Amino acid sequence: MKFFEKLDLEIAKKSPICVGLDPHFDFLPREILEKNFKKHGENPRGAAAAILEFNLEIIDAIYDLVPAVKPQIAFYEKWGSEGILALEQTISYAKKLGLLVIMDAKRNDIGSTAQAYAEAFFEKDSDLRVDALTVTPYFGSEGVLPFLEIAHKNNCGIFLVAFTSNKGANEIQEPIKDSLIEKINNFHLDFGNLGAVVGLTRNDLVELRKKMKDVFFLVPGFGAQGGSPENIKKVFFDNKKALISASRSVIFAYKDRNDKDFKKSARKEVERMKKELVTLEI
Amino acid sequence: MKFFEKLDLEIAKKSPICVGLDPHFDFLPREILEKNFKKHGENPRGAAAAILEFNLEIIDAIYDLVPAVKPQIAFYEKWGSEGILALEQTISYAKKLGLLVIMDAKRNDIGSTAQAYAEAFFEKDSDLRVDALTVTPYFGSEGVLPFLEIAHKNNCGIFLVAFTSNKGANEIQEPIKDSLIEKINNFHLDFGNLGAVVGLTRNDLVELRKKMKDVFFLVPGFGAQGGSPENIKKVFFDNKKALISASRSVIFAYKDRNDKDFKKSARKEVERMKKELVTLEI
Repeated sequence: MKFFEKLDLEIAKKSPICVGLDPHFDFLPREILEKNFKKHGENPRGAAAAILEFNLEIIDAIYDLVPAVKPQIAFYEKWGSEGILALEQTISYAKKLGLLVIMDAKRNDIGSTAQAYAEAFFEKDSDLRVDALTVTPYFGSEGVLPFLEIAHKNNCGIFLVAFTSNKGANEIQEPIKDSLIEKINNFHLDFGNLGAVVGLTRNDLVELRKKMKDVFFLVPGFGAQGGSPENIKKVFFDNKKALISASRSVIFAYKDRNDKDFKKSARKEVERMKKELVTLEI
Repeated sequence: MKFFEKLDLEIAKKSPICVGLDPHFDFLPREILEKNFKKHGENPRGAAAAILEFNLEIIDAIYDLVPAVKPQIAFYEKWGSEGILALEQTISYAKKLGLLVIMDAKRNDIGSTAQAYAEAFFEKDSDLRVDALTVTPYFGSEGVLPFLEIAHKNNCGIFLVAFTSNKGANEIQEPIKDSLIEKINNFHLDFGNLGAVVGLTRNDLVELRKKMKDVFFLVPGFGAQGGSPENIKKVFFDNKKALISASRSVIFAYKDRNDKDFKKSARKEVERMKKELVTLEI
């Protein structure tokens, strides 16, 4: 089955929520860190082991509530090969529990380099194989096509990082807006395995939703500042083709809630989000 | 000492040539592949061991001729954590032989994610620590500053992927040209540790060189199609602030030359490039 078909099915069964696995070192529960540093040393191996233990606990806590997890690879790459090994083990565990895995890596390159990235994340025998990958379009169509083609061959998906919410985003994203929207619609028509990353706090959400009405949106920022009910409604407007993503507000909910049990806190936060979406009639 | 000072010194001693370590699997010498598959199995570990052996031999062959090597991380990531381990060992060996290491990773993100990437490649205790990193500007200034700041703190450098040679490059890079040039000049003034990646076959090389006259250029494409003497002269025009990079044409020269000795072939190709630059009075 193709990625977006699987995603639609799982969303229907569970929710349109994706949990970001961004194991920011400074926020990991102290007891997990100390235990793993004691066992492996205060080094990349110890840090990676702590991240893995944390991730598996989080996945256990939320896997029946959401269709997908989205690891942000930077937080694993920070610990080098040990971190990437922890990422591979996280992917494997998430898949075993029936979760789709969207790798947030924002890769971008051309030719055989783009191909090598795509093979890392999509080929059946790769330990980093996931269901979908975020890709940035700085090299134009030629930098997106190799990802789309190899994803397509492996029934995987691409989320093109299109219009983000950060302060300086429009320095580059505004001048190319219309042409990128056109490209995204065409890629979607040609391949059927392309979605777009769109920031939740943008003030042109209605316009973007209308101009790319058949394109699936991956929307980070739920739970963070600015994820107002109005914006959430705009994202899901009309056809509900969206997956809304929350990372730190879920996995580190124990900090905000002052709760020692990070698993329970994460689960509670996802349940709260689900309820919020129901209230909004999404 | 700061990265660009080191680079200037090493260029003066050796040459303005950088060798790209892009160990494309299909081009690895058969005997190295077979040996390592036999030892480790036909799996990511075997492939990564072959890549490592190949890289160390290439480094041995060229380290006294060039100031820097530039691994393209995609060809390592393709083999997951095993590939990243081979990359770490390659970095370590290159540094031991006095080479600067420029990581071609084209990373791009904002906030704490950008910070995590930058820590992976610049912090002293990271196994992936290198001297400089390529970064893509799709998120605007906010996506570049965390890299610049952390690089600066660690005496490392950034090469911002600015204007590339690929076919679709100008779909996105042309509409933002003037504003990106201005940003690059400002980043250079503010931090002093920013260079720009500029493609060798662009037809606006003279303009780019003039408008960013104090900015160091990293220029891939030497040895590949289109790296004509005229273009090379344009890149080095006036102040010679450039490092010209060749990857496959060096490390896989044995294929073009039909020579079994890939080390000798790689060395010969770098020597040929050095002579070409001397002939061009660079």
